[in-house]
Amino acid sequence: MNVLIVHAHPEPQSFTTSMKDLAAATFKESGNAVQVSDLYAMRFNPVATECDFTSRSNPDYLVYALEQRHNYDSGSLADDISAEIDKLKWADMLVLTFPVFWYSTPAIMKGWIDRVLISGLAYGGKRFYDRGGMRGKRALIAATLGGQPHMFGPATVHGELEVMLRHVLQGTLGYVGFDVLPPFFAYHVPYISEQARANYLDRFQDHLMRLDYMEPMQMPSLDAFDDVFRPLPQ
Amino acid sequence: MNVLIVHAHPEPQSFTTSMKDLAAATFKESGNAVQVSDLYAMRFNPVATECDFTSRSNPDYLVYALEQRHNYDSGSLADDISAEIDKLKWADMLVLTFPVFWYSTPAIMKGWIDRVLISGLAYGGKRFYDRGGMRGKRALIAATLGGQPHMFGPATVHGELEVMLRHVLQGTLGYVGFDVLPPFFAYHVPYISEQARANYLDRFQDHLMRLDYMEPMQMPSLDAFDDVFRPLPQ
Repeated sequence: MNVLIVHAHPEPQSFTTSMKDLAAATFKESGNAVQVSDLYAMRFNPVATECDFTSRSNPDYLVYALEQRHNYDSGSLADDISAEIDKLKWADMLVLTFPVFWYSTPAIMKGWIDRVLISGLAYGGKRFYDRGGMRGKRALIAATLGGQPHMFGPATVHGELEVMLRHVLQGTLGYVGFDVLPPFFAYHVPYISEQARANYLDRFQDHLMRLDYMEPMQMPSLDAFDDVFRPLPQ
Repeated sequence: MNVLIVHAHPEPQSFTTSMKDLAAATFKESGNAVQVSDLYAMRFNPVATECDFTSRSNPDYLVYALEQRHNYDSGSLADDISAEIDKLKWADMLVLTFPVFWYSTPAIMKGWIDRVLISGLAYGGKRFYDRGGMRGKRALIAATLGGQPHMFGPATVHGELEVMLRHVLQGTLGYVGFDVLPPFFAYHVPYISEQARANYLDRFQDHLMRLDYMEPMQMPSLDAFDDVFRPLPQ
């Protein structure tokens, strides 16, 4: 299996980096090939602009998704985007490792999503969810956060973390067709002991070893909707 | 009233830009002061790094939120962040205008959130939701998207848009204490007629004129939770 780990943390010595390193080592030890896109180390540009396209279907007015499609077809996407797309196509599994910033990824990783999950390849027209371009591949989120476990779940102060993160889990990874595996979260990370962090790494390794036996998260199926995505009668 | 509009769109002639311009004009005509942060025009840097801090409480290991707090207290934040914070403190209302990218803001605006809504001012320790640093101010999202209205809501293909966007509405704006006004969405924008777009601008202006009469969205209240944010007995 080919694994692409996309990683973002502003501190190279961070615990999140240890999780990324552990994931890479664990996948390799099981005989898989691993590539890592360490976005901070790469100084990845997260801003979607007209510079992403060396050809234009409409030079006077930028519709970003339409130019993604046009430039993917004509092989004229910016080099940094093409390099990431090559890794994405190569990968059977995508792993995102990041600290939760505002119930989302850091901006540098949001920009990887904006610029790399292109229309025409990852999705487009009527190809999304179980008809998305990434179907047959799996995706895993492994993230750290400052909050504590008792702050998340039904009837807690913040509600369910999986709902706060639905925009990534369903609206992004599920949308493009990945089988989205149950995410792994390490809580309260800036404030816990070295021992507690070591325990989290053990639990993360255990999570990684069990991926093949996990059910992907439930996502919408287009089979339940008509040609214009209205619900079909049951 | 002082209004800060934070705007992000890669196409300067976009419909989203027309919405931003309409919002600025409408607020001014009603006698309010308006500032606009047009993030693409400013070439705003969205990437949170150690360069954001000219002083460090811990020079060897970056905990981003802790350095935000330290550098805010010591007046040593990077100039581009300080300039945005001055506008945020000045504002009674924050308006975010953007095209929905992956059920979220474009990365350049996510970076404004990551870097400008700093710990120590916007939130921190036990100050969030109705104790957040932005309480007493209002916030409004005005966004465009490619999807159609019938794709959103209970029992639709994508589910409720407000749930997909909970990470911004509650997890960001509500979290720091804003009264979050009902958002305005223009659907299917790249594919609709000029007349349909004009109708959306009329409806947006109407939305803006009625803001004073709108109930903010429901957010958690810390009054229902104890000192460590466990639910209090009812």
